[in-house]
Amino acid sequence: MPETNRQVLLKRRPNGMPVPEDFAIVDGPLPEPGEGQVLLRGIYLSLDPYMRGRISGQRSYAKPTEIGDVIEGRVVGQVMRSRHPGFREGDYAFGGYGWQTHSAVDGAALTKLDPAAAPISTALGILGMPGLTAYAGLKTIGEPKAGETVVVSAASGAVGAVAGQLAKREGCRVVGIAGGADKCRYVTDDLGFDACVDHHGDLSAAIDAACPKGIDVYFENVGGAVQRAVYPRLNDFGRMIMCGMIAEYNDVEPRPGPSLVAAVRKRLRIQGFIVSDHAALRPEYLAMAAPLVRSGALKYREHIVDGIDNAPGAFIGLLQGRNFGKLIIKLGDDPTK
Amino acid sequence: MPETNRQVLLKRRPNGMPVPEDFAIVDGPLPEPGEGQVLLRGIYLSLDPYMRGRISGQRSYAKPTEIGDVIEGRVVGQVMRSRHPGFREGDYAFGGYGWQTHSAVDGAALTKLDPAAAPISTALGILGMPGLTAYAGLKTIGEPKAGETVVVSAASGAVGAVAGQLAKREGCRVVGIAGGADKCRYVTDDLGFDACVDHHGDLSAAIDAACPKGIDVYFENVGGAVQRAVYPRLNDFGRMIMCGMIAEYNDVEPRPGPSLVAAVRKRLRIQGFIVSDHAALRPEYLAMAAPLVRSGALKYREHIVDGIDNAPGAFIGLLQGRNFGKLIIKLGDDPTK
Repeated sequence: MPETNRQVLLKRRPNGMPVPEDFAIVDGPLPEPGEGQVLLRGIYLSLDPYMRGRISGQRSYAKPTEIGDVIEGRVVGQVMRSRHPGFREGDYAFGGYGWQTHSAVDGAALTKLDPAAAPISTALGILGMPGLTAYAGLKTIGEPKAGETVVVSAASGAVGAVAGQLAKREGCRVVGIAGGADKCRYVTDDLGFDACVDHHGDLSAAIDAACPKGIDVYFENVGGAVQRAVYPRLNDFGRMIMCGMIAEYNDVEPRPGPSLVAAVRKRLRIQGFIVSDHAALRPEYLAMAAPLVRSGALKYREHIVDGIDNAPGAFIGLLQGRNFGKLIIKLGDDPTK
Repeated sequence: MPETNRQVLLKRRPNGMPVPEDFAIVDGPLPEPGEGQVLLRGIYLSLDPYMRGRISGQRSYAKPTEIGDVIEGRVVGQVMRSRHPGFREGDYAFGGYGWQTHSAVDGAALTKLDPAAAPISTALGILGMPGLTAYAGLKTIGEPKAGETVVVSAASGAVGAVAGQLAKREGCRVVGIAGGADKCRYVTDDLGFDACVDHHGDLSAAIDAACPKGIDVYFENVGGAVQRAVYPRLNDFGRMIMCGMIAEYNDVEPRPGPSLVAAVRKRLRIQGFIVSDHAALRPEYLAMAAPLVRSGALKYREHIVDGIDNAPGAFIGLLQGRNFGKLIIKLGDDPTK
């Protein structure tokens, strides 16, 4: 049994793209679970683009991470000791306890996982927050109809891959945008999108070729040059599901967006959302998606990086688009494998 | 009885702000009504911002006016001769027959007006397209709730004045933005808005002072500097009703808009609409608004310019914000007054 808890703290607020020096890795004693708590040993830590906002200190929908705090994050782990009646030693559970190898967590804030139902890591990806994000954005804003053209940026990413597969199941023409030939091949050949545009090339021409009838729904994860290429190609009554704009999260000054004259003329709907506003959709999403994940009809890909010491570097890579699939840090042994 | 029909034709497409030389005024013979048509003598011609788009030739929701065509527009007139069973000489009617003093129009395309029900000119303003525009934007996009703060730009204009009064009736705090002290005084003292900001001053500071709880709904008629000042002050879940952006209609190159990162973070909904998509709302709007107009509970103001020869100059003034109230060209005598 390990004697230490290793944590990643926010050492200073990043200015632009984060650098490793913005993070501090420290060792401390194992936490002691109080009454109603369990001691969890982390197995998988999820790294997600939204974390960039949390460490920036800007006013946002959630309170920022303070300097010296453990960086926030969702973890799948295993119970080492339980002082909560709902958990026993050896149980697997999921909760938000940050970039650290161990944590004492209120049992009430944990969700027990059944490793026989789905690989436990999927609670961080396709059956977790990213999957629900894709579902909620399509359902509450995009409302894609059969025959419409849906474009998804960051198409090989944790959210984009699910968004595109779900739109495809609605009978849409689905076009992904991703960085590089490998990711594009995965998006079409494995995920089943109709086409994929490599954003390293001539974006506008490639989007025109892939979307001969224009774009009805755009699932936006990226911003920047991709948004500038997609926006003028939206059809009348087009919907922009504003899920994320990772390419602009490191901007020190916000850059201008598209002229909204087209939003009037084309009756566009441009709408942002945050998955936590749609927690009520979680049961219906899981009821739909979990069987499809088990049967293989909904596909996913994980990019697993070993060791908490590599979390800062992997997170910087995520902001630069260097991951391929859902980015996960392996914190410790996975006995289910 | 006049022997000529005077028309305003599009002589060339404006480059930026229109100039009088973009228009041609020509006289021709009175048109001859065919079977099922009536000959109408125009009394009031409506001038509206959307016309700038029509004469620009750009791809839009309606086909553009071609060079040499009569410029499109809605008119209230009186029947001089009828070859349609639904109309008799002397009847008042409303229809879209352009910048001209007379027209032969299909009776089926006309709406008969009862001068006893409301002043016939209101069919061009508060009980016409602009009024329905305000209603449809609030109802289908803004959905203002009691206690919310609603900001309306071009607040003394044909659409803005109705939008603000309707939001006020929903129990909202309503703040107008208008150009100059006279318009602002009218917006607060006559229309009953809670406050009005003069956009000639320090917009940001004035909006902050007038909107201590931020902005929940923005009824956008203007764009430009006003939009840049309002956008960062939108609250979480704010709605931008994208009705028009008159300040940018004369741009030769579209200017950039606001960064959409805030749309994600604050879950904004930015949505354009065109009143013609919402024609089905017309009966319920008129059922609500007509009695309020008759009782004086809904107020309106008309800016009437005499003579079709002045239409080009008045239209240019509209694009420059020089009108004060619904801009109407008086084409001929109004026997109801």
